[in-house]
Amino acid sequence: MAGTLEAALVSLLREPVAVTGAGRTDAGVHASGQVISFATARAFPFDRLALALASELPRDLSVRDVTIVDAGFSARFSALERTYVYAIYNRREPCALLARHAYHVWTPLDDEAMREAAAAMLGEHDFRSFCGVLPESGPTIRTVRRLEIERRGDVLRIEICADGFLHRMVRTIVGTLVECGAGRRDPASIEAVIASRARAAAGLTAPPQGLYLAGVRYPGYDSYREPPLF
Amino acid sequence: MAGTLEAALVSLLREPVAVTGAGRTDAGVHASGQVISFATARAFPFDRLALALASELPRDLSVRDVTIVDAGFSARFSALERTYVYAIYNRREPCALLARHAYHVWTPLDDEAMREAAAAMLGEHDFRSFCGVLPESGPTIRTVRRLEIERRGDVLRIEICADGFLHRMVRTIVGTLVECGAGRRDPASIEAVIASRARAAAGLTAPPQGLYLAGVRYPGYDSYREPPLF
Repeated sequence: MAGTLEAALVSLLREPVAVTGAGRTDAGVHASGQVISFATARAFPFDRLALALASELPRDLSVRDVTIVDAGFSARFSALERTYVYAIYNRREPCALLARHAYHVWTPLDDEAMREAAAAMLGEHDFRSFCGVLPESGPTIRTVRRLEIERRGDVLRIEICADGFLHRMVRTIVGTLVECGAGRRDPASIEAVIASRARAAAGLTAPPQGLYLAGVRYPGYDSYREPPLF
Repeated sequence: MAGTLEAALVSLLREPVAVTGAGRTDAGVHASGQVISFATARAFPFDRLALALASELPRDLSVRDVTIVDAGFSARFSALERTYVYAIYNRREPCALLARHAYHVWTPLDDEAMREAAAAMLGEHDFRSFCGVLPESGPTIRTVRRLEIERRGDVLRIEICADGFLHRMVRTIVGTLVECGAGRRDPASIEAVIASRARAAAGLTAPPQGLYLAGVRYPGYDSYREPPLF
């Protein structure tokens, strides 16, 4: 994503551009509320940059809006919190139309067991057990501010909002919740999973195609947009 | 679609299989409520056929349900009416997440002008003006029973139900409605477009990616399922 966007910006601004993204989107992960920042010396008519980019970008990458910000702004470091949405298609048969947009779980999931497990993840914890590659430095403590599970027809919508996320943290949380919902893991065990600080104690990593970076909140601005699936 | 499904059925049933589909789905067109029928002499456990097919089919093709029907049933010829849904993403900037699932119309559309044009298409008419390739034989008269336009956020949802459809009829109707909504065509002209019985009198064919075969109604059964976009 960053490389494609940089190439399009270089082509329009005719100078080297380095973009900073607010949130990680691994291969297969979607974003409806990603924010990127970059610095430029050019006087491009910025109210028309989004449309100009539309003709440069492949159709699986689009820019909603462009705004001029203070020089100190960073899409990554100025962020106050990020919201991810994860879509599970929970029905016996798969759905071709959602194959690339949701995680198909064929076994019936117990929403209440998942909500009980989710409640134990809320708040400030060391999320090392839910982290893929550990950060090179710094703490693995994060604060999960919201973790909501809602069923909409055959789709289970999981929304998770935190001050920051570790590598694969959302997908590992979802994988662990699914194991609780499927009856393969006791929701009461989540406290111990967190306390263990061991990745092996948590569940499998849920696949990327169900994950959406839905919004990033900054002082005075929130990029949240509901993924079009819902 | 038919070829892929036939190959999967042949692999499971171990005999030649010819499938009949209820509705046309050209390249790029989606279906949430397609129905196909086939005859077999095999005693496959049919309550498990949908799941067995899931492991044979590519992930962009899925089977919801399998039912045994009377020998005289044809997915195509027993159908009483078909419902198509067409999705237009109506916002200035494109949306990457909908690029393959909706038609991006950047110019603001006037819903009321579109509804006025739609009203003129309701009922029994000769839809030859809205037909791509003419049928080899038989009339070009069809009865449009419902043609509804509803805005849901940035998405304009068009639902069209008829006793039958001509080649590219839905996409040509949608293309013509869009021209009315964009102010490039007078909604009052639709009557004359129909009367002309000339394809050149109607609008452009809307692209395939916005179109969904959403349901087919038979005596005692309706396959309708809302496309997951809405």
